[in-house]
Amino acid sequence: MSRLSLQIQFLVEIDKLKQILRQSALMDGSRLENDAEHSWHFAMMAMILAEHAKEKVDVCRVVQMALIHDIVEIDAGDTFVYDEAAMATKTQREARAAERLFPILPPDQSAWLRALWDEFEAGQTAEACFAGALDRLCGLLSNYQTQGGGWKRHGVSAERIRARNSHIAEGAPALWELAQEFIAEAVEQGWIEEA
Amino acid sequence: MSRLSLQIQFLVEIDKLKQILRQSALMDGSRLENDAEHSWHFAMMAMILAEHAKEKVDVCRVVQMALIHDIVEIDAGDTFVYDEAAMATKTQREARAAERLFPILPPDQSAWLRALWDEFEAGQTAEACFAGALDRLCGLLSNYQTQGGGWKRHGVSAERIRARNSHIAEGAPALWELAQEFIAEAVEQGWIEEA
Repeated sequence: MSRLSLQIQFLVEIDKLKQILRQSALMDGSRLENDAEHSWHFAMMAMILAEHAKEKVDVCRVVQMALIHDIVEIDAGDTFVYDEAAMATKTQREARAAERLFPILPPDQSAWLRALWDEFEAGQTAEACFAGALDRLCGLLSNYQTQGGGWKRHGVSAERIRARNSHIAEGAPALWELAQEFIAEAVEQGWIEEA
Repeated sequence: MSRLSLQIQFLVEIDKLKQILRQSALMDGSRLENDAEHSWHFAMMAMILAEHAKEKVDVCRVVQMALIHDIVEIDAGDTFVYDEAAMATKTQREARAAERLFPILPPDQSAWLRALWDEFEAGQTAEACFAGALDRLCGLLSNYQTQGGGWKRHGVSAERIRARNSHIAEGAPALWELAQEFIAEAVEQGWIEEA
């Protein structure tokens, strides 16, 4: 197959990301959002909020991480961050998905996207650390805008939300400040319990 | 309001893009796709197909154009490219939308996104020209994958499809070759009429 054919085959395959539902809802609460929409919103956040990164970041690479970070969920599905049993098998399920999906591309592009995804998952570089913070902020913002949303539905306490999201501070201290305000208000409004 | 508050207000506002439906369907034909999903797919195409641009492009800027190019449709709605009455008022409706939406951001970021959108719409730079080609390829690929999709539903002929899309060649000659193969096969399969 030609290089272009492989690229088109990959672009057709990843259309499936539009059907993978997350636990977070649209901000008007009308329905759950899917991974493709979320990836777009996350990439927009990277463009708009880059100045709040703890270390100076290459915005272009953060945007690229945002665009590809959930592609593995086409096979592995969305894993709810407060579902501890599912979280235990997440790494293995997603690695298997990466081994099927990225190699649909020509080898050089497959290696490029795999390295970018591995970098995002490891969360060690300035870009990955900031991207990780934004990914969490997406969920937080949705839950806040929908009066508790997934937190309320699953009975997650403010204490657990803080524990699961405090590493936002490592990528973007100002965004962690903001996130804490959202969580505090969610308790104040009675959408969630403190502990 | 603080700079961060304005940025968050914008990021909440653009969540509405997830509810603007296009005429093109998901590639399994199960439902119409929305602008946020499309913008993500378009940005992925920019990453993967950049080598096919007619002139060398700054991929990062093409990706950014993809992410923001449809934000005006939050107010202006999606305009079907073969609806000539709607196409006649598109520019004015979208300009009005741009005047409301981008200025939610701090002034420097509002000016930046507005300039990027104007550049995309004008289609004169190498990046805008390639982005315009990819935007059209998204629709073509969806219609091809869904056995004629929107073309068939609206009775659009191969002749009109070629006329409306031939400027793909200006941004990416190899992708126009591919698009013509899709159109020819759509005729051959009987999904659409030649004229």
